[in-house]
Amino acid sequence: MGGEIQPAIVIDFMRDLQARLCAHFEKIDGKAHFGSDTWEHVSGGGGCSRVMVDGDVFEKIGVNYSHIKGGNMPEAATDARPELAGRAFEATGVSIVSHPNNPHVPAAHCNVRFFATEDASDKVWWFGGGFDLTPYYPVKDDVVLWHKAARDLCAPFGNDVYPQFKAQCDDYFTLPHRGETRGVGGLFFEDLNHWGFDSCFAFIQKVAEGFAATYAQIIEKRRAEAYDDKQKAFQLIRRGRYVEFNLIYDRGTLFGLQSKGRTESVLMSLPPRADWAYASELDPDAEKELAAYLKPRPWLED
Amino acid sequence: MGGEIQPAIVIDFMRDLQARLCAHFEKIDGKAHFGSDTWEHVSGGGGCSRVMVDGDVFEKIGVNYSHIKGGNMPEAATDARPELAGRAFEATGVSIVSHPNNPHVPAAHCNVRFFATEDASDKVWWFGGGFDLTPYYPVKDDVVLWHKAARDLCAPFGNDVYPQFKAQCDDYFTLPHRGETRGVGGLFFEDLNHWGFDSCFAFIQKVAEGFAATYAQIIEKRRAEAYDDKQKAFQLIRRGRYVEFNLIYDRGTLFGLQSKGRTESVLMSLPPRADWAYASELDPDAEKELAAYLKPRPWLED
Repeated sequence: MGGEIQPAIVIDFMRDLQARLCAHFEKIDGKAHFGSDTWEHVSGGGGCSRVMVDGDVFEKIGVNYSHIKGGNMPEAATDARPELAGRAFEATGVSIVSHPNNPHVPAAHCNVRFFATEDASDKVWWFGGGFDLTPYYPVKDDVVLWHKAARDLCAPFGNDVYPQFKAQCDDYFTLPHRGETRGVGGLFFEDLNHWGFDSCFAFIQKVAEGFAATYAQIIEKRRAEAYDDKQKAFQLIRRGRYVEFNLIYDRGTLFGLQSKGRTESVLMSLPPRADWAYASELDPDAEKELAAYLKPRPWLED
Repeated sequence: MGGEIQPAIVIDFMRDLQARLCAHFEKIDGKAHFGSDTWEHVSGGGGCSRVMVDGDVFEKIGVNYSHIKGGNMPEAATDARPELAGRAFEATGVSIVSHPNNPHVPAAHCNVRFFATEDASDKVWWFGGGFDLTPYYPVKDDVVLWHKAARDLCAPFGNDVYPQFKAQCDDYFTLPHRGETRGVGGLFFEDLNHWGFDSCFAFIQKVAEGFAATYAQIIEKRRAEAYDDKQKAFQLIRRGRYVEFNLIYDRGTLFGLQSKGRTESVLMSLPPRADWAYASELDPDAEKELAAYLKPRPWLED
């Protein structure tokens, strides 16, 4: 337990993580390459947005790194901790969102982030993040693989970690107006600091590694599966739900836009294309099968 | 001025308006026809959603009628009037959203609505609504035509009406994170009751008629213009902004979803297809020209 708080090491890790993830996904894709845009934030610090499009696997995948400094903790970040309002802070993180071409390859998202006030004494800090999977033609084996990876990486940190972070993921990635979750979940955590700095930092490294390795496995299982126009059309309709979640509910997206973040980087998460068809019944069988996956389920106990 | 409040007459007007608008737009389209779905609201009342897709002009156009009754005024509707919380109410309205095929034909939106508490004494009521135009390849003559129609229909109600409701439209249909308006505006008003019932009711009739006639004129001017794949692609990118506005900012959409409205009817406003391209520079000239239109401008004074 414990260890001194070392923001500089976290920042180095985040920057390196972005580079490694881009190399990882370029290798998986085998065709396209990431672009790179470096930007500065109005309040200090900045980031680098890397997006790859029109790949063999990835219709669009973004890997964002940012390290923001601010003199005044924004309100939206202090709802749960009003005592922090106005303090100087820094925040760093990496976000990945993948929208594959093939409707049989799930979309996926991962985020790891670190926050610290800059006061030398009484420093407040935490880690946050997680990952979640959004299949359109779900395969139970893939979902179990995903959740087993989540459970296994959590295990060294306590047996209650996976159930708790899995439940938080189900709660967070929910579209109440659709009566469904965004996907089959994974892990979601905020305000993580009670294990001490070293363990918390080790945990988010495991989260990022677990995401990259497990998503790669699922991609390899599904990337060669044939699909037809109707299945592609169904994917586009379902991507509309992804857009709905991100624009209506996602705190990261809304905070990013409200805090004058770089709009193109914040909205990197949106799919390259999405359709809305009034009262769509494009593929009722697929819709029905998917619906059974889009509610919290104990994937490792069935 | 004045006249007794007659909700039943407004409801009849709204139902008839929906029928007339559907006939109007079917005639303009000449190819497709509106479907019709009647639905009930959880708290009482209901509505009818009518959507036409894959037309000659209209890729998707929706004309929604609703008449909702509730025993408990919802919080979101009472922010400005906390004294109304918990009162029984009824609300009726018609909303129209059009997404044409041709990128040279602007998207357009119109809404007229009436709200009243059901208390026999101390009855509170108001009208609201307006219309706005969202061109992707704007033509100044069309924008001036649109605003002249707005000004002319407002004139009998006072010379300050158009400037005020025009300014409110610019304020409302704004995407702060993009630094632009949704389109070139028009009229937007809420809480309209100070002219008395008869005049307010007459006004919203003029708004609906003015919208239908003026949008028809603009459609006829532009529907035969040729467009290429690049222009269609630009339209799809710009429709992404339409989605962003409706899901992030539009109070009607968010209130509809939060109040357990019928999701498919609330989201009828979304385009059939939208694209997001990271840091798109698909058509920089078009983007630049459009940007000059997407800020509040005194269209009738240039």
